[in-house]
Amino acid sequence: MHVRIALDVMGGDRAPASCLTGAALAVAQDEALTVLLVGPKTVLAEAPEHPRLLAIPSGPGVPEGGQPAAYLRAHPDASMAVAVGLVADKEAEAAVSVGHTGALMIAARWRLGTVPGVSRPAPAAVFPLGSQPVVLDIGANVDVAKRDYLAFAALGRAFAKAVKGVAAPRVALLANGAERGKGTKVLREAYTLLETRVPDFVGYLEPVEMFTGAADVLVADGFLGNIVLKTMEGVAQTLLPLAPPGDHLADLLARASDITGSGSPLLLLGTEGVVVPGHGRAHAADIARLIALAARAVRGGLLPTVHEAAAEIGLAEV
Amino acid sequence: MHVRIALDVMGGDRAPASCLTGAALAVAQDEALTVLLVGPKTVLAEAPEHPRLLAIPSGPGVPEGGQPAAYLRAHPDASMAVAVGLVADKEAEAAVSVGHTGALMIAARWRLGTVPGVSRPAPAAVFPLGSQPVVLDIGANVDVAKRDYLAFAALGRAFAKAVKGVAAPRVALLANGAERGKGTKVLREAYTLLETRVPDFVGYLEPVEMFTGAADVLVADGFLGNIVLKTMEGVAQTLLPLAPPGDHLADLLARASDITGSGSPLLLLGTEGVVVPGHGRAHAADIARLIALAARAVRGGLLPTVHEAAAEIGLAEV
Repeated sequence: MHVRIALDVMGGDRAPASCLTGAALAVAQDEALTVLLVGPKTVLAEAPEHPRLLAIPSGPGVPEGGQPAAYLRAHPDASMAVAVGLVADKEAEAAVSVGHTGALMIAARWRLGTVPGVSRPAPAAVFPLGSQPVVLDIGANVDVAKRDYLAFAALGRAFAKAVKGVAAPRVALLANGAERGKGTKVLREAYTLLETRVPDFVGYLEPVEMFTGAADVLVADGFLGNIVLKTMEGVAQTLLPLAPPGDHLADLLARASDITGSGSPLLLLGTEGVVVPGHGRAHAADIARLIALAARAVRGGLLPTVHEAAAEIGLAEV
Repeated sequence: MHVRIALDVMGGDRAPASCLTGAALAVAQDEALTVLLVGPKTVLAEAPEHPRLLAIPSGPGVPEGGQPAAYLRAHPDASMAVAVGLVADKEAEAAVSVGHTGALMIAARWRLGTVPGVSRPAPAAVFPLGSQPVVLDIGANVDVAKRDYLAFAALGRAFAKAVKGVAAPRVALLANGAERGKGTKVLREAYTLLETRVPDFVGYLEPVEMFTGAADVLVADGFLGNIVLKTMEGVAQTLLPLAPPGDHLADLLARASDITGSGSPLLLLGTEGVVVPGHGRAHAADIARLIALAARAVRGGLLPTVHEAAAEIGLAEV
């Protein structure tokens, strides 16, 4: 399946060189891939020549810091907004940007809209240890309602099916104990809702069990998901200098030390298109990897799988 | 300084043998230590003979599961209640029990009362990685108010001073970002309160920074603290089989895999006495270690330091 990926070439600390080189690497590695390079004309003039690298002129990149919503309103031609717009206009099947993640979420909501029943799109990641669970929300939505947990369950199931190839992903709510009396008030309400609606719901899971394979998808609000992610990173960063260099353990610790830069699948879910964020520190090889992830998500049918999962759970009716 | 420790000999899966042997080990290792063995007469009849092991008859141990408060009401002579009562009656300076932790917290509140200004006593632990921060609450109080964070700050400072010997412990609130706009509503309220009242308050700290030494005391509600603890344990348990056996890294991973059984200092804080809980799986050597921790906390002046820290912060006036 030939896939077209729109790349914001202005995203990240090393842009545009990292993005232009990364795109060239990606098309060299995948013959059924076209990358639409989105950036100012002067930048695109420096792009490598390749029949499957297409130049799409846009305005500037979104600066780090500041108010991303205000910036995007004032600059509707910002490179990441145009990249996402190409997905909305069916010119590309997915958009990749390692620019401002908050801005990318806003641009994705505005240009693509949300999947019916999803009020809060969420970033999701595969945690690269043990059974490699899909975890979401890893940081966007701090205050959530019980129905958001239901949406996260649908989105996480679609991620596990389409990107990881899990046929019937088991879903758990991350909590401080396995018994259903545990958790906060909203978690207990979410438990009751997920129990009646989510196929293969396994109840609460404590983070100590998170890598054992007891669940494929771990659902949390963006505060908790972010805390769990950063705890994993902190533990791994502390232990990494002690691991024998080059060892498998050192490799795992390095990956768990930096989830957004680790090469683990990371997706924004819940908007009507495939959107891949990444860390601003990304090098060219990381950009190529993110483009390949976007292509894999498209070929795995992520968006139709999201719709199926949402329909199966009856998201739009809750 | 001669110290008397009351030991609930009926606590834990291996009781009473683990406790009786552990007490004998402890007094052999510390000549300025007396252990008051608390348990039914028939059990105490089996205790090792030693001039600094004293038998204090009591009722049975508190069973695991069930309703601990109801059990303690029906059995005021339960071994852990009598052990804590010896502290209340100044017959001992500290109590140790690896029985039901929830029951121990209740018994401690009832028999000892709480420190003025502390409405929720909290379990606290040293996390055994990197800078080895004191973390609390690690699991007891799921729904807390902003003033509870202030109490946890005072209790954590006292722990770091009296047990770890940190002269001016820096306190942070665990959160999902360093900027003060981060966190939940109650965390932002707590930030404002701690900022005005807690000496050496350093603001929010993300768990990724938790072992870097940026703070000595990490304050969280019992839900979040428990999640962070169990995430650390889950990461360590997943990596432990991959570490070279006998290596320093393997040792660290083993300790981080099981905080209550690791030998890291673990205390119940906020009641008017020194109370040391522990894991029910404790062997005799673990019991000896917990007794030694209790003696260290007494000799370090934990309880007067808690009072000083509470006064310094003005806990009783908030």
